[in-house]
Amino acid sequence: MIKAGIIGATGYAGAELVRLLLGHKEAEIVWYGSQSYVNQNYADVYRNMFQIVDEKCMGEDMDALADQVDVIFTATPQGYCASIINDAVLSKVKVVDLSADFRIKDVAVYEKWYGIEHKSPQYIEEAVYGLCEINREDVKGARLVANPGCYTTCSILTAYPLVKEGLIDADTLIIDAKSGTSGAGRGAKVQNLFCEVNENIKAYGVASHRHTPEIEEQLGYAAGKELVLNFTPHLVPMNRGILVTEYASLNKVKRADGSTGLPSYEEIRAAYDKYYEREKFVRVLDKGVCPETKWVEGSNYVDVNFVIDERTGRIIMMGALDNLVKGAAGQAVQNMNLMFGLKESEGLEFAPLFP
Amino acid sequence: MIKAGIIGATGYAGAELVRLLLGHKEAEIVWYGSQSYVNQNYADVYRNMFQIVDEKCMGEDMDALADQVDVIFTATPQGYCASIINDAVLSKVKVVDLSADFRIKDVAVYEKWYGIEHKSPQYIEEAVYGLCEINREDVKGARLVANPGCYTTCSILTAYPLVKEGLIDADTLIIDAKSGTSGAGRGAKVQNLFCEVNENIKAYGVASHRHTPEIEEQLGYAAGKELVLNFTPHLVPMNRGILVTEYASLNKVKRADGSTGLPSYEEIRAAYDKYYEREKFVRVLDKGVCPETKWVEGSNYVDVNFVIDERTGRIIMMGALDNLVKGAAGQAVQNMNLMFGLKESEGLEFAPLFP
Amino acid sequence: MIKAGIIGATGYAGAELVRLLLGHKEAEIVWYGSQSYVNQNYADVYRNMFQIVDEKCMGEDMDALADQVDVIFTATPQGYCASIINDAVLSKVKVVDLSADFRIKDVAVYEKWYGIEHKSPQYIEEAVYGLCEINREDVKGARLVANPGCYTTCSILTAYPLVKEGLIDADTLIIDAKSGTSGAGRGAKVQNLFCEVNENIKAYGVASHRHTPEIEEQLGYAAGKELVLNFTPHLVPMNRGILVTEYASLNKVKRADGSTGLPSYEEIRAAYDKYYEREKFVRVLDKGVCPETKWVEGSNYVDVNFVIDERTGRIIMMGALDNLVKGAAGQAVQNMNLMFGLKESEGLEFAPLFP
Amino acid sequence: MIKAGIIGATGYAGAELVRLLLGHKEAEIVWYGSQSYVNQNYADVYRNMFQIVDEKCMGEDMDALADQVDVIFTATPQGYCASIINDAVLSKVKVVDLSADFRIKDVAVYEKWYGIEHKSPQYIEEAVYGLCEINREDVKGARLVANPGCYTTCSILTAYPLVKEGLIDADTLIIDAKSGTSGAGRGAKVQNLFCEVNENIKAYGVASHRHTPEIEEQLGYAAGKELVLNFTPHLVPMNRGILVTEYASLNKVKRADGSTGLPSYEEIRAAYDKYYEREKFVRVLDKGVCPETKWVEGSNYVDVNFVIDERTGRIIMMGALDNLVKGAAGQAVQNMNLMFGLKESEGLEFAPLFP
Repeated sequence: MIKAGIIGATGYAGAELVRLLLGHKEAEIVWYGSQSYVNQNYADVYRNMFQIVDEKCMGEDMDALADQVDVIFTATPQGYCASIINDAVLSKVKVVDLSADFRIKDVAVYEKWYGIEHKSPQYIEEAVYGLCEINREDVKGARLVANPGCYTTCSILTAYPLVKEGLIDADTLIIDAKSGTSGAGRGAKVQNLFCEVNENIKAYGVASHRHTPEIEEQLGYAAGKELVLNFTPHLVPMNRGILVTEYASLNKVKRADGSTGLPSYEEIRAAYDKYYEREKFVRVLDKGVCPETKWVEGSNYVDVNFVIDERTGRIIMMGALDNLVKGAAGQAVQNMNLMFGLKESEGLEFAPLFP
Repeated sequence: MIKAGIIGATGYAGAELVRLLLGHKEAEIVWYGSQSYVNQNYADVYRNMFQIVDEKCMGEDMDALADQVDVIFTATPQGYCASIINDAVLSKVKVVDLSADFRIKDVAVYEKWYGIEHKSPQYIEEAVYGLCEINREDVKGARLVANPGCYTTCSILTAYPLVKEGLIDADTLIIDAKSGTSGAGRGAKVQNLFCEVNENIKAYGVASHRHTPEIEEQLGYAAGKELVLNFTPHLVPMNRGILVTEYASLNKVKRADGSTGLPSYEEIRAAYDKYYEREKFVRVLDKGVCPETKWVEGSNYVDVNFVIDERTGRIIMMGALDNLVKGAAGQAVQNMNLMFGLKESEGLEFAPLFP
Repeated sequence: MIKAGIIGATGYAGAELVRLLLGHKEAEIVWYGSQSYVNQNYADVYRNMFQIVDEKCMGEDMDALADQVDVIFTATPQGYCASIINDAVLSKVKVVDLSADFRIKDVAVYEKWYGIEHKSPQYIEEAVYGLCEINREDVKGARLVANPGCYTTCSILTAYPLVKEGLIDADTLIIDAKSGTSGAGRGAKVQNLFCEVNENIKAYGVASHRHTPEIEEQLGYAAGKELVLNFTPHLVPMNRGILVTEYASLNKVKRADGSTGLPSYEEIRAAYDKYYEREKFVRVLDKGVCPETKWVEGSNYVDVNFVIDERTGRIIMMGALDNLVKGAAGQAVQNMNLMFGLKESEGLEFAPLFP
Repeated sequence: MIKAGIIGATGYAGAELVRLLLGHKEAEIVWYGSQSYVNQNYADVYRNMFQIVDEKCMGEDMDALADQVDVIFTATPQGYCASIINDAVLSKVKVVDLSADFRIKDVAVYEKWYGIEHKSPQYIEEAVYGLCEINREDVKGARLVANPGCYTTCSILTAYPLVKEGLIDADTLIIDAKSGTSGAGRGAKVQNLFCEVNENIKAYGVASHRHTPEIEEQLGYAAGKELVLNFTPHLVPMNRGILVTEYASLNKVKRADGSTGLPSYEEIRAAYDKYYEREKFVRVLDKGVCPETKWVEGSNYVDVNFVIDERTGRIIMMGALDNLVKGAAGQAVQNMNLMFGLKESEGLEFAPLFP
């Protein structure tokens, strides 16, 4: 039985991690860390856990924690994990960091977009970017995994096969993303009050959202070159779910008979199948079916699909996931499973909730 | 492995049954019955099941089904189960009927409130009312279980200990219930369109809702006399969840020292604990905590609590559950577990989803 | 042109007052008071007012304000109006207080339920309770109007004719109320975050909500005796709207022919018509039609109706209004109109918004 | 007093037209046409109008109607207006058609995208595209106005100044649009049920939505050349509101000093101001403020703004409106005002509703 500690167990992502690990047959939570609720019953902070979790919130002492557990999850604000991680910890336990601290390889880029100093740049290199479907083998051997962001997981997986196969002009990529409100966290802010979010939709962080460089870096690896792209997040009046709609110009393909032209549905589809056919958690939908966030709610699935627009020569790619599961806690568990040699889908094999 | 067939698998309750049985270790679904979608892929009707359920919808031939399965669930409109059930079926399989057909012992009451003729009154007597926490032993031996209604499960469990113990005057009981919209089913009706339900709340079926006689009958058994009460359902702009707020006058209690008076918090609490302390799925909340539907969403839990109003001599009881789980499919699985001698909570041991 | 000042113009009720007064032909706002946003552009706090309101938020100096306006609206937290009102102010301007400070005649009751000391009890007696349909003539001559609470307006108007006419046993009155979230105000609290309110319903303030004594006092005047009753508010995932469902035992009526019995539909209806037939803003719906909050959204209407349950001898009364309009700002404008001798419906003659 | 008849008064757009015309000082509705509800009380179909509208629904006989009114609004499904309009009608009354029948000048394009035969192509040429801010003078003299679509109004107004001034490369224009559910109409369809839309977001009509050619045609006039572009609509769980997020590559500008470069914030802003500074209903927001649908709800305003992304050389333009007001009924009233020589904003001068 793997002993797990969670630093930041009282945020929405941390709480989802609790929910998922409670259903995991080979892991148990032994430490519910929280900055704001120390010594309070966890079930008083998340009443869904009444009579299910009978523990108090602990502080966030990573060193103490490292002596008691096999894996530490940090579901904390940016900068926090980097400020407390150290060699001693990493020598004792595996760490899955759900914050952005170890996602971006270039510390200067991190510091520019996040506006904070990185306190542990020495661990950036060894950290593995935990997008399981793409970096599976590296994750298996990692002791520090940077769990991808919610928007980034959805944005990357939706476009990855086409970027990797050179079927789209990656320089034309535009990502229009829509997220439920749990992505904004549980902090008490006027802008996240029910009456401000409900019956409303808006863009925010336009041309400046922090997930942009993360997407650019990862898709840049796939493209084999540096990329800049547009990423625009929107806030949607729903609790969970991210939908991305991505636009790019198709590259012409050269065919066996010497002809060239825009790729066909079948050619695009083959690229998706090449990468995802054996992936349990990425579902390439049937032709004509658009992903909807509701169809993946509460689950670790990502649904993707695409439409070719021959009039404009562009492709519209779409992807949907649950930001708290595949976009955060579910992927963290998937990473843990890989790191400990468990079945990758252990604890994640449940169907989406509908309606 | 128990083989299960579902008649009415494409309604919301049927779909939830599919979701739950997919996660059940000792049962498998072998028949997805549907009147409206015969021969269509189940996963085209409920896309959350894409790549999870790979079956087509079958017709609703109960006789054919009875030869292939161990248990049949009917999640069908009122009157349908009664019209197709017969001795041959009951001699081969166990039946859990999620409709109202076998819930009410007095066929005249059924026919009056439902406005239809009952086609199989001969099975009413043997049918066991499947409110597990109350009729557990009877359910174990049943071949036909009448799965309780969503409103009724919540209404009854919230008041049951106090009615049973005579702590309230059952003739003063008033139940004000609030339900999410999945209770209205998946039929295409103007009144259930998003724009009609959203940003709206209304009462409906006032003094005439069909769950009234079911609540009266069951609480009447607890009271040891016939009851009439007020039950008013309301439609709330949310997908899942039922909250009931129940009002009744407290009876005076006579104490060991000869004094009489309104029962204290501790005396009421003791009554709840007497019936629910060992019940996994009924959670009596801490003093001062009001049940919220969100805290039980997606789970089989019922949260109950109460407040004594000394000014008026009344008690306000509250209960919350997920209408599709404990109010329908979850309770059906719980009944199945009891009927087949499985662990009662098998397939239902997951925490509520939040947020 | 009446000059109006608003103290507390940046809360939801204050902002609604701004919206309504902007559409009022005989009033203009000259002071947008706000404790939290002094010197900020009002349109930066409420962006719907961009290019419509071109004023900065002022402080909340009632004395300075009294020299500049004809009427002051206080849409402030409990206790604030009482702490700043004085003879000088009342000698210069008329005041409509949207807080609870002058609603309750017995200062001890106020201090007990609100838990604060009343700073100006000397004005309580002269303050007129501004429920226009009931106290119209008194409002016309008032210089200080206590604008009723949102729940109370709805609760009182729904039951008033039957209490007044003695058709129900007022001691059996139970009020189950449901409110949209704007009633909780614009303060940044975790419990009012979108993800906490959405897909959720709960009771709160059970047997202790501060609107209880206000309802009891006013319905007590109608009944001609002191009343205690149960009032239970619930939080509903919608922005606007209050629905009340009220239960009471019917009194028998003695008819001309000497017979006695429960009142008929027509007799109850006649009582409603007696009080509301000529009231523009109270709509007694057709038989069988239940009030819905959506049908009054954005307007000053209250929709009421009732169902007699002969089985239990009780009547179920229902009422719906928009908590920010008839439940707050709209009624405040209606009071202002009466106080200044304007047409009572001036500035309020628009239809509800649907959907 | 202008006498108005509405054909299709029982759809959501028709009902909004009723709401707006009721508040219009110089118009009155004399005919509530409806295919589905003939002879029913209008207030039974839209209960917000109880005691406000006391008329029955009439049939949709345009010829009879033309003898009784000055203006006919057709808020009907595609193809209907074209099938009933004729010379006699147009000789007697002015017509504002809220359907798409006369929006597209090329009948072949109309018939291809809408999949139906156009029954009155002879009136297409004279029909004026009623986007008031752009075609104001033509609208004034028109007898047949094609009222623009909801998505198109928002899409066009958001990009118009930059296309017209050549500041963006119109061939790179990508429009990602998000709409509330009232845009889907009041027809009873499973996909529009509350439980299917709530907690969900999806794209639909990808690369095939019928508003695409309308946007292309109108922006093509501004660009002075034929355009093709990508338009992707999404369904958002809210009643009202459209938000568009538009992406395009900036053209370099040549400056007075001979230098060239991407346009600055000020240069882009100047273009918007050139076209919208004197427009009451188009609000160019302050720098850094993103449009939100909630800030225009219930009103005729369109809020627009933009962000320049120097990294990619693209601009992100955003626009928000209420699909039932500026996107349908409000614009229809604005057109009527122009056609009859009234003040353009008559009946539309109210502030947005918040929250």
